[in-house]
Amino acid sequence: MSCLESLSKEELIGLKGSLQKEYEQVKSRNLKLDMSRGKPCLAQLDLSLEMIGLLHTPEDFRSENGMDVRNYGMPDGIPEARRLFGEMMGVEPEAVIVGGNSSLNMMFDTVARSMTHGVCGYSPWSRQGRVKFLCPSPGYDRHFAVCEHFGIEMIPVPMDENGPDMDMVERLVQTDAMVKGIWCVPQYSNPTGITYSDEVVRRLAAMTPAAKDFRIFWDNAYCIHGFSQDDRNVLNILDACRQAGHEDMVYLFCSTSKVSFPGAGVAAMAASRNNVDFIKKCIGIQTIGPDKINQLRHVQYFKNLDGMKAHMAKHAAIIKPKFDAVLEILEENLSGLGIAQWTKPTGGYFISFDTMPGCARQVVELCRQAGVVLTPAGASFPYGKDPQDSNIRIAPTFPVIEELRQAAQLFCLCVKIVSIEKILLAK
Amino acid sequence: MSCLESLSKEELIGLKGSLQKEYEQVKSRNLKLDMSRGKPCLAQLDLSLEMIGLLHTPEDFRSENGMDVRNYGMPDGIPEARRLFGEMMGVEPEAVIVGGNSSLNMMFDTVARSMTHGVCGYSPWSRQGRVKFLCPSPGYDRHFAVCEHFGIEMIPVPMDENGPDMDMVERLVQTDAMVKGIWCVPQYSNPTGITYSDEVVRRLAAMTPAAKDFRIFWDNAYCIHGFSQDDRNVLNILDACRQAGHEDMVYLFCSTSKVSFPGAGVAAMAASRNNVDFIKKCIGIQTIGPDKINQLRHVQYFKNLDGMKAHMAKHAAIIKPKFDAVLEILEENLSGLGIAQWTKPTGGYFISFDTMPGCARQVVELCRQAGVVLTPAGASFPYGKDPQDSNIRIAPTFPVIEELRQAAQLFCLCVKIVSIEKILLAK
Repeated sequence: MSCLESLSKEELIGLKGSLQKEYEQVKSRNLKLDMSRGKPCLAQLDLSLEMIGLLHTPEDFRSENGMDVRNYGMPDGIPEARRLFGEMMGVEPEAVIVGGNSSLNMMFDTVARSMTHGVCGYSPWSRQGRVKFLCPSPGYDRHFAVCEHFGIEMIPVPMDENGPDMDMVERLVQTDAMVKGIWCVPQYSNPTGITYSDEVVRRLAAMTPAAKDFRIFWDNAYCIHGFSQDDRNVLNILDACRQAGHEDMVYLFCSTSKVSFPGAGVAAMAASRNNVDFIKKCIGIQTIGPDKINQLRHVQYFKNLDGMKAHMAKHAAIIKPKFDAVLEILEENLSGLGIAQWTKPTGGYFISFDTMPGCARQVVELCRQAGVVLTPAGASFPYGKDPQDSNIRIAPTFPVIEELRQAAQLFCLCVKIVSIEKILLAK
Repeated sequence: MSCLESLSKEELIGLKGSLQKEYEQVKSRNLKLDMSRGKPCLAQLDLSLEMIGLLHTPEDFRSENGMDVRNYGMPDGIPEARRLFGEMMGVEPEAVIVGGNSSLNMMFDTVARSMTHGVCGYSPWSRQGRVKFLCPSPGYDRHFAVCEHFGIEMIPVPMDENGPDMDMVERLVQTDAMVKGIWCVPQYSNPTGITYSDEVVRRLAAMTPAAKDFRIFWDNAYCIHGFSQDDRNVLNILDACRQAGHEDMVYLFCSTSKVSFPGAGVAAMAASRNNVDFIKKCIGIQTIGPDKINQLRHVQYFKNLDGMKAHMAKHAAIIKPKFDAVLEILEENLSGLGIAQWTKPTGGYFISFDTMPGCARQVVELCRQAGVVLTPAGASFPYGKDPQDSNIRIAPTFPVIEELRQAAQLFCLCVKIVSIEKILLAK
């Protein structure tokens, strides 16, 4: 089909009529489909089932340091888990704190701690005035929610295929001492799917922030989540920061939420010695220790990073066909119409879709009325406000493939209808 | 033996000499014993081993509401876990939030949240000036550490066999609007082992605090931890608060740390609808959800409160003989000497021991030098300062009984030596 803009008003009205008939037909089928959250599907949950049954006898519960993981202690995690997550993040075990089941919780706690207790001896953020965070957008809605919760002002920074706009990031970080953080999902970014270029990582690491207590929040949630194992990995940020003489400037986060179980995985963070020492003191007050049985279970199951990667290939075999199915339908239905563009990620959990400006909310609403739930338009932007009202995050992993196809077809239909209305208004 | 005070100087010096000889003999054995923390012993950890292997097939992971517990979601816990912990705390499931593995973490987060976001719509504590907490003492050192961490001023309140001194508590709570909380371990209190009387609970519930955002932190860590099942239970504080028209005034906490696994149990809190609604909003930002697999595992294993209580009888069978052994040795060695008193708890994890004023630190140090680790003297008081320097917390659960006997014997020896020195100084 050719570019819709080039059609006459009459042609557009005719087309819209037939598309709407089609929409009503789909609607009458009372679909109940969900492409809203980056949730693994049932088949993925079953991949790690064996892990649950691993530990049996009292001897099974010994950590390699001789401690019984069933009992209290080891607030920063068992040594073998620190080693495994160290491998995952590309850092030494001493730089790792292994936590509970949620890396979001570790990020939240890190922000909360900075608000009440500051960063490595600096004054608490809450006593310094209105703290600001840079928010490369579209980005992860839950990062933004943490900022909003703590009254942190969010400054959106545009994203391109290499990562955030580094000119803007450098200018803000290096001139405004109230800019205390930046959220980064550097590998298969949520939702655009891009991986930060080496240059972007090096420029981030080389920054000399106006605020001594500025930190990069490096949420490497998808660090081993490529569809193919030879895909490019994002540069090691802790190494880059060390090379630039800024090793205290970054916190790394990761988890097995999308490796083992979303609800019962293991999360970890990593940072410089200074940061780890400071954080461990606080964690020692907050809890007597994380769930070490679950940590041991994970280490015994995966053994090492190679074991994890082999496991991730099984995930990829399940979810890549889902991405392919959606991308194929988008291509078939929308390519060449001049009304949309979308990313073709090589890993991660999302496709980022851009409608014509001013159409996203309406597309999501039209889908909803026909039984297909999408992430609310704007959710990927600070304060839920997409200035263009064009971005929609598509999460293809959870539905079974047949339902996914139906949902994607309906989605395309809605995009076309809303776009034609938009074009007609301008004619 | 008769009261040491009544002995002559010469008799005391002679006695001290022979005790010191005995001490040197014990010291030469190079003991390595630990009576410092309330840790379950190996045999207790083995009691719940079966739980670990409970879940197998994908169908096993369905919550009763149809959700797959392996996946994201349900930030306040699965319904069957809310019911189980509701039974444990004597409240309806709707009043319960089931969390991760640590009730200390839930208490910490509750204080942290109150500092940054206030309580149910009131101004954040951190913006109201210097917050104060009442700290019935001796009490739980980790409660006090949370206060210290947040710069909360701690006011020690004396404890007797009925609970905290309620005249003092009422006076402070009802006149000082900066008093925002009180820490309570109401059943088998840490470390005194006493259970609050019904009158104390009713008076707590009936208070009309000067601060509208005052809360009772009801850490019912040992709610089902009696040595005998027909022991008296502390009155239900949420019911008492409701009867007094103050249902928002209390947070309840509990966990299975000393029921299943200290490092991998499940923690929960309970409160009024207002409190729960407010807290759930924050938790929804903080995490996508707790480890629900572990919650389900616990529910499937214990089934209900009766199942938990039957399980606790097995714990009691292991630890009551340890308490008995220590109490017997204390009685044998120290009774009638007029130099010490101690509690004889009917449940919980501790014996609270009082030396003559000014002796506790020295006793702990003398024990340490001979290879027996005790909780640091003063640890059970705010800021680690026991004004009398007399309280020592004894934790008999972790060592095997033969080692415990050795440790208790040495302890008595040290108490006698230090006491005689003290008495001699005054002669």
